[in-house]
Amino acid sequence: MKKGVILLSGGVDSSTTLAIAKSQGFECYAITFQYGQRNHFELEMAKRQCVLQGVKEHKIFNIDIAQFKGSALTDHTLDIPKQASTDIPITYVPARNTIFLSIALGWAEVLGAHDIFIGANIVDYSNYPDCRPEYIDAFQTMANLATRSGVEGNHLMIHRPLIQFSKTQIIEQGIALGVDYSLTLSCYNPDSQGRACKVCDPCRFRAKGFREAQIEDPTIYTAN
Amino acid sequence: MKKGVILLSGGVDSSTTLAIAKSQGFECYAITFQYGQRNHFELEMAKRQCVLQGVKEHKIFNIDIAQFKGSALTDHTLDIPKQASTDIPITYVPARNTIFLSIALGWAEVLGAHDIFIGANIVDYSNYPDCRPEYIDAFQTMANLATRSGVEGNHLMIHRPLIQFSKTQIIEQGIALGVDYSLTLSCYNPDSQGRACKVCDPCRFRAKGFREAQIEDPTIYTAN
Repeated sequence: MKKGVILLSGGVDSSTTLAIAKSQGFECYAITFQYGQRNHFELEMAKRQCVLQGVKEHKIFNIDIAQFKGSALTDHTLDIPKQASTDIPITYVPARNTIFLSIALGWAEVLGAHDIFIGANIVDYSNYPDCRPEYIDAFQTMANLATRSGVEGNHLMIHRPLIQFSKTQIIEQGIALGVDYSLTLSCYNPDSQGRACKVCDPCRFRAKGFREAQIEDPTIYTAN
Repeated sequence: MKKGVILLSGGVDSSTTLAIAKSQGFECYAITFQYGQRNHFELEMAKRQCVLQGVKEHKIFNIDIAQFKGSALTDHTLDIPKQASTDIPITYVPARNTIFLSIALGWAEVLGAHDIFIGANIVDYSNYPDCRPEYIDAFQTMANLATRSGVEGNHLMIHRPLIQFSKTQIIEQGIALGVDYSLTLSCYNPDSQGRACKVCDPCRFRAKGFREAQIEDPTIYTAN
């Protein structure tokens, strides 16, 4: 059975990506990063998805990239925007996906895995440069030059199965694969009980996805 | 004054690279990783080089990649080889330079720096895939797609000024720039007083470098 390493945040996209990797016959190793983000509830959802989806091993990796500041996701003095932006928004975390993929790459090499999965997509997204397919392809090229695996001719692949999917298509795909979205959290700024804010980018994309897929939205929103 | 981020371990190569960045007029921001390596004395040397060379800021970044095992540098149950290898040796740490460069990339972006320096070289080296120029160039291509900086047209450059230098040439260059090599440590396996073992790859390359440069070797070796 081939091993796959899956970047899992506990939101809609990564939980769906995990289900896709599993449906393709991979033995799944999930990695979740605690990097100083506001949202600690994500981590609990990631743990539940791993149990529900029968992950072989779930690694929770601590890395303090919040010390660099520069993002509203990790600098709690900055406000999370309530409207969409046409530029790269303040929630962008510098080099986040590169750092996460690099660490996943190290783990994959030790596991003997040649497949890494990331839930990046560029339809209903926040203009983050490190979600684009040309970025992920360049990471894959670099990864094959970086590692023992690549040098020894075992081609390493970075899978991004959702890259051209709308949020609606992602949810439809996940429902078909049995993903329980009531045990996911997408919100950047949940309240103290983990209820979603309804106004940040991921909340809006997620709500639109359920609405357009005509699937009941299981998200618990904050009262106000 | 342009800002440069320098990967600094506290050995010969990175200390020389720092001196080169400084000589090129960069305001230097050094980053040193504590990643579970055996050698804690390196870190002290890195700190001293930062003071000696007038670094603007020295960041010591903790990241537990030792949890993945798979390398004699981080798994203390494995022995450090005493002979050279024609393959990738057991001291190779999976994806190490990729993880370190990625974190440096995140910091560079927040600092507004477009230049990162790494002391990688492929003459007197241990066959690590992530020291080769084609790897570093691929990382640079990826980095320009990954970041706000790249998207906004500020070309990001990964400098590797030592890439084709022998250890002798590196030491000659460093001496010309005033590097104090008595305050560097290269050994993978120093004793409890921080004295070098004389037999690991970096010890042998370093000793050969001083000998061929006809410069007195300031390294303190263990007695036996």
